[in-house]
Amino acid sequence: MNKGRVESFTDAIVAIILTIMVLEIKVPGGYQWSDLLDNLSAFIAYTISFFFILVAWYNHHYMFSLARVISKKIFWANNIWLFVMSFYPVSTAWLGKYIDRLPPAFFYYFVFLFWTFAYQWLSYEIKSARENKEIKTKIEHMSIYQFTKNPIFYFSGFVIAILIFYFPPFVLITSVVELVSMLIFTNEDSDRLFS
Amino acid sequence: MNKGRVESFTDAIVAIILTIMVLEIKVPGGYQWSDLLDNLSAFIAYTISFFFILVAWYNHHYMFSLARVISKKIFWANNIWLFVMSFYPVSTAWLGKYIDRLPPAFFYYFVFLFWTFAYQWLSYEIKSARENKEIKTKIEHMSIYQFTKNPIFYFSGFVIAILIFYFPPFVLITSVVELVSMLIFTNEDSDRLFS
Amino acid sequence: MNKGRVESFTDAIVAIILTIMVLEIKVPGGYQWSDLLDNLSAFIAYTISFFFILVAWYNHHYMFSLARVISKKIFWANNIWLFVMSFYPVSTAWLGKYIDRLPPAFFYYFVFLFWTFAYQWLSYEIKSARENKEIKTKIEHMSIYQFTKNPIFYFSGFVIAILIFYFPPFVLITSVVELVSMLIFTNEDSDRLFS
Amino acid sequence: MNKGRVESFTDAIVAIILTIMVLEIKVPGGYQWSDLLDNLSAFIAYTISFFFILVAWYNHHYMFSLARVISKKIFWANNIWLFVMSFYPVSTAWLGKYIDRLPPAFFYYFVFLFWTFAYQWLSYEIKSARENKEIKTKIEHMSIYQFTKNPIFYFSGFVIAILIFYFPPFVLITSVVELVSMLIFTNEDSDRLFS
Repeated sequence: MNKGRVESFTDAIVAIILTIMVLEIKVPGGYQWSDLLDNLSAFIAYTISFFFILVAWYNHHYMFSLARVISKKIFWANNIWLFVMSFYPVSTAWLGKYIDRLPPAFFYYFVFLFWTFAYQWLSYEIKSARENKEIKTKIEHMSIYQFTKNPIFYFSGFVIAILIFYFPPFVLITSVVELVSMLIFTNEDSDRLFS
Repeated sequence: MNKGRVESFTDAIVAIILTIMVLEIKVPGGYQWSDLLDNLSAFIAYTISFFFILVAWYNHHYMFSLARVISKKIFWANNIWLFVMSFYPVSTAWLGKYIDRLPPAFFYYFVFLFWTFAYQWLSYEIKSARENKEIKTKIEHMSIYQFTKNPIFYFSGFVIAILIFYFPPFVLITSVVELVSMLIFTNEDSDRLFS
Repeated sequence: MNKGRVESFTDAIVAIILTIMVLEIKVPGGYQWSDLLDNLSAFIAYTISFFFILVAWYNHHYMFSLARVISKKIFWANNIWLFVMSFYPVSTAWLGKYIDRLPPAFFYYFVFLFWTFAYQWLSYEIKSARENKEIKTKIEHMSIYQFTKNPIFYFSGFVIAILIFYFPPFVLITSVVELVSMLIFTNEDSDRLFS
Repeated sequence: MNKGRVESFTDAIVAIILTIMVLEIKVPGGYQWSDLLDNLSAFIAYTISFFFILVAWYNHHYMFSLARVISKKIFWANNIWLFVMSFYPVSTAWLGKYIDRLPPAFFYYFVFLFWTFAYQWLSYEIKSARENKEIKTKIEHMSIYQFTKNPIFYFSGFVIAILIFYFPPFVLITSVVELVSMLIFTNEDSDRLFS
């Protein structure tokens, strides 16, 4: 497929998902600071989801730069990734509304997990489509790839579920931790690629 | 016309239609799982429409790659196609709200049929604009093209209408069947085009 | 300025304006055909505005292809054009809601007129920025350019205002007439430009 | 990083923020001119925010044209800039609703200030990434860069806060003044860059 067209189509969808999340922050019903603060948990959930998606976009952008062609399989792995991400506005808004309740926290966590699986599948398809060994290695060295391939990922996923059970807002702490670690541990060549 | 600009304009519109459909999935009014499940039929309708549009985009992308120039006629066939697709958010949300009622099911079905006709016209215009025989043949070999040219298409369209009459959600089953068959039967060169 | 970036930024804004208009077509509150028909005037207003914007985009696309550079003046003429167009969703929705009332019809008409003036200014700036005489002539030959330069335009604008006063929905008929004539009378080279 | 992809991703987000602000202008509840005028302060706030973002985009576009590569640091400075800007629809709508109240005016002002700081950081990162002295000088000559580096900026920021305290709508006058001065004092080469 036409890689540039798939990229810009993907970017448009990600940009819209990112931006419609802010539509869920309702204009305060009154003119007091307290009216604005009613939205506080929505602000927090929005902020975390916003940066989380940007970190993911950074990795997606890096990975796509390593793909030579976009096969039908890569296209569909990418679509599943976009589809799961399209639930972020709903899951973020629900969590922002009831930040201390179990079902919204678990729903947010499920969307987060499914999205991780979709990402894993996408990276696997991009890796498989290349014969170039150096590039395969680069993808395998991405922190997100290594983390999701590690048995610790499944174990920690289980532990996090228990922690959320006792303290629902923990799901946001999980997001922040993954966000920051994905932000720090990027492949060294990721911002030199096009220089 | 400038093919790249028409493509990216089309992609932006398709990306927005795809994403605003998710706005119709309302944030649950309570914090229980049952509040989320109230949205179940909306989720199902959304999922099917989302992937249906992506499959159509895949075919659109393939067909446009075969066009050498975008004539005024192709541009307007493309616009009609976009216009009909712009009713998907409304028809999907209406069906998602009343999944077992006749009028929403038939409205969804009409949008679906008109969109198919618009697509047929678009493929016809792209085919007609090329003198190259090989490319004409490629377009004629697309499963969606062959299907809509076949008298069986009109016959089955009639049978489906009857089935929807007795069981409205059948319209979604129809979508899934067309989605899956369009997903499987793509031209062999469609994902090798740019390698 | 970077012409490609201005074009794609413009296209993104036009695509969003085009698509959010459909958000004003509310999902019917009931499941009867009559519930859908409650939206009929909104459908009609939406359809006309949708195609009107597409026709304008076609002319915009043609005119920009004749521009060699995007100067600060052209950029700002373009921004005013986008700004006025951004009122189309509101003016269309208001007219769609009260299709037989004077204020919504005149508001729609004012947006329409201001948009035409913005377009005229934009075409003037693009024309002035080129020294090439052939290209100046091409812009002057565009039907929309010729029409807005003609005194008849101001006279007919006045007559239309009177007709709207007696029959508000006439504003939509005006749009359709301009739409169709702009659709038919395009410069001959407009769809051969890039072949 | 891929500069073109970061640019078009940024443009898509800016275009959406710009356009969803218009969604906050509600369709009037009645068909009288007075119903439209109920929206007057929302119109004013929208207009100022719309052009303000466009002026900022113009400067952003100029600055990015001077960047050779987009490093991880530039990418994140750009993201913070986008994040702060994503509060414009909410802050504009809140101010538009209660144009004579302190909290909405100060919230709008804070978003405005944070956005200025984000912009300053972004320009600093782009400047630092280049070794070319001529380009460093160009960025330093941008009126927005010079203004925010000047102690007068901090002093005037304080004075404006006091003025807003006594007359909340003053925040919009501040925006208009900055808008117009940024519009007039642009680097001379900013619209000749690509000729």
